[in-house]
Amino acid sequence: MQLKDLIIKTRSYRRFDESHAISYHEMENLIDLARLSASAANRQPLKYLLYNKPEECEMIIPSIAWAAYLKEWHGPVRGERPAGYIIILGDKSITESFSVDHGIAAQSIMLGATEIGLGGCMIASIKREELRKTLSIPDRFEILLILALGKPVENIIIDPVKDNDIKYWRDEKLNHHVPKRSLDELIIKF
Amino acid sequence: MQLKDLIIKTRSYRRFDESHAISYHEMENLIDLARLSASAANRQPLKYLLYNKPEECEMIIPSIAWAAYLKEWHGPVRGERPAGYIIILGDKSITESFSVDHGIAAQSIMLGATEIGLGGCMIASIKREELRKTLSIPDRFEILLILALGKPVENIIIDPVKDNDIKYWRDEKLNHHVPKRSLDELIIKF
Repeated sequence: MQLKDLIIKTRSYRRFDESHAISYHEMENLIDLARLSASAANRQPLKYLLYNKPEECEMIIPSIAWAAYLKEWHGPVRGERPAGYIIILGDKSITESFSVDHGIAAQSIMLGATEIGLGGCMIASIKREELRKTLSIPDRFEILLILALGKPVENIIIDPVKDNDIKYWRDEKLNHHVPKRSLDELIIKF
Repeated sequence: MQLKDLIIKTRSYRRFDESHAISYHEMENLIDLARLSASAANRQPLKYLLYNKPEECEMIIPSIAWAAYLKEWHGPVRGERPAGYIIILGDKSITESFSVDHGIAAQSIMLGATEIGLGGCMIASIKREELRKTLSIPDRFEILLILALGKPVENIIIDPVKDNDIKYWRDEKLNHHVPKRSLDELIIKF
């Protein structure tokens, strides 16, 4: 697949076919993509926790804040929840500064997920102390991002931004609309 | 190309065939990949400056700190310098917090560069105030990353990490070696 098509298909999905399991091997292959991606000063301070068992997923979901702009929606219902999670940690014994390593890694992972028919959402809005307790994450590790993964069941439509309003929204057919700024707005000159 | 092959080819290149020009259109297409990538709360606060003229590139290069681990090497010599730069700015009129948006965007751009036969390096080690003056960048914009681009002329070899030493190095044939941690080291459990 051309990269542009892969990127267009890599949307932030929040509703999944929960019955579609994700194998540990698939997740390992996704981490390998992150492993081979750039890292600031090549320090490679990121570590990964992988969860794909229903009881594990059940433990993680309460620590996630879903879709801030959808006030009426409190996260995926049973049957539509993620079938796997990758938690990206920063290992403070390597560095205290993770730069944008987790952004780079997350993008590689999400593109890789799309390639194998999965999708998901990068989540930074995390109840970190709650999650740390639930998963017994030692203080040495900073909780950077959660990647929720699954087989998407929602249709996402990219719209142009109107009136500078970038809030995503759902229409009556539950299509999820994401307004994207134009190239003209993003490329600037002085 | 499979994503894994694309990611393996997307190394941090610092030596280029400077005579190989990059068109403005190619750069616009790369920004479009970033535009279509994820952004925290969909705020899309990143803006992009594009430079592909030799005299522009000449102005930018003094503000870059190259390859911290190569003490003997002070950056690419004439003839091997980048033929283009993308500077990623954070627009503080949109948000003061850019999260890892620029990591996500940079990875999309660098993968796109590889796809069209280019390569480059994400650079965060920037003399920011010097660059701000040189390019007349208003205070409203935070300078986040420079992406140096060109047609790579160096051979990069991924090695396993030995003795926890992650410093990249060059051998006598000028092959650039990058030690990468193993998957076993990155995937952890508690």
